[in-house]
Amino acid sequence: MKVLRPRPLTRTAFAPFGDVIDCEGARHFSINRGTTERYHDLARLDMREGGRAIVSIFRGQPRSYPFTIAAMERHPLGSQAFIPMQRTAYLVVVADADPVTRAPRELHAFLARGDQGVNYAPCTWHHPLLAMDQPSDFVVIDWQGEGDNCEQFTLPEPLLLMAG
Amino acid sequence: MKVLRPRPLTRTAFAPFGDVIDCEGARHFSINRGTTERYHDLARLDMREGGRAIVSIFRGQPRSYPFTIAAMERHPLGSQAFIPMQRTAYLVVVADADPVTRAPRELHAFLARGDQGVNYAPCTWHHPLLAMDQPSDFVVIDWQGEGDNCEQFTLPEPLLLMAG
Repeated sequence: MKVLRPRPLTRTAFAPFGDVIDCEGARHFSINRGTTERYHDLARLDMREGGRAIVSIFRGQPRSYPFTIAAMERHPLGSQAFIPMQRTAYLVVVADADPVTRAPRELHAFLARGDQGVNYAPCTWHHPLLAMDQPSDFVVIDWQGEGDNCEQFTLPEPLLLMAG
Repeated sequence: MKVLRPRPLTRTAFAPFGDVIDCEGARHFSINRGTTERYHDLARLDMREGGRAIVSIFRGQPRSYPFTIAAMERHPLGSQAFIPMQRTAYLVVVADADPVTRAPRELHAFLARGDQGVNYAPCTWHHPLLAMDQPSDFVVIDWQGEGDNCEQFTLPEPLLLMAG
């Protein structure tokens, strides 16, 4: 089985798939009489008509690694952001879409630090939540409304995701 | 100086001011083939016309307690949610508005556990971020757009907020 190894998650490497939500390199300024630093506007929330942004908590059970990546999913109607609530590292697997068939083409894995969130742009192929060492809570900001917002795709050749 | 002591933060006690964002007592269901529990739609994001919801990180320095509460603020054009990123407890001070003058009237303090976020409804008087023991990061979801979204009010009689 082909092996997929994660790279460190950086804004530049993740740019084709969405946003990295963290303080590093972000625009920031002081508020509340200097007691708080505001790292400002870190994700493009893109919620299509017919729905709205909602806030949920996802509690993800840790996976066993190496982990077999057998399917991917995407949400055509809205962006979806995940931000760790316990500084727990996690894995992110995304894929670019074939320009003709629109199916996932090349897969990319990223190791997210516990202080980094991600925001998948609408229509970005990604694997469901991949927690690592312990049950992990994430703030999730995604779309809710009328319509089918989840496409799934079974990979013809599964990949073996390494934890590092 | 009059003393203000925090109560535990609960959904019921906080209801007049907005939402508590936590898993306890929230509607939830299993997703991702049973590997993730989704605690669903925990905050009323209420963003008025002329603006949009944005995601930021606030890094709050700890305050010294007892802490003097001398002023309050509110945001008329949008809700504002705070969710801890490091499971750090913090304090929340809100006030109901005088029905005639609309100024802050009675102040209420809550001790938020590190797994609890809050979402201030638009126009809710509240004190800026009150971190406790260490510099603390929070996911913040609030309004950005054209218009003045911050009213401030200096209390005629400051209160002394106890940490517990």
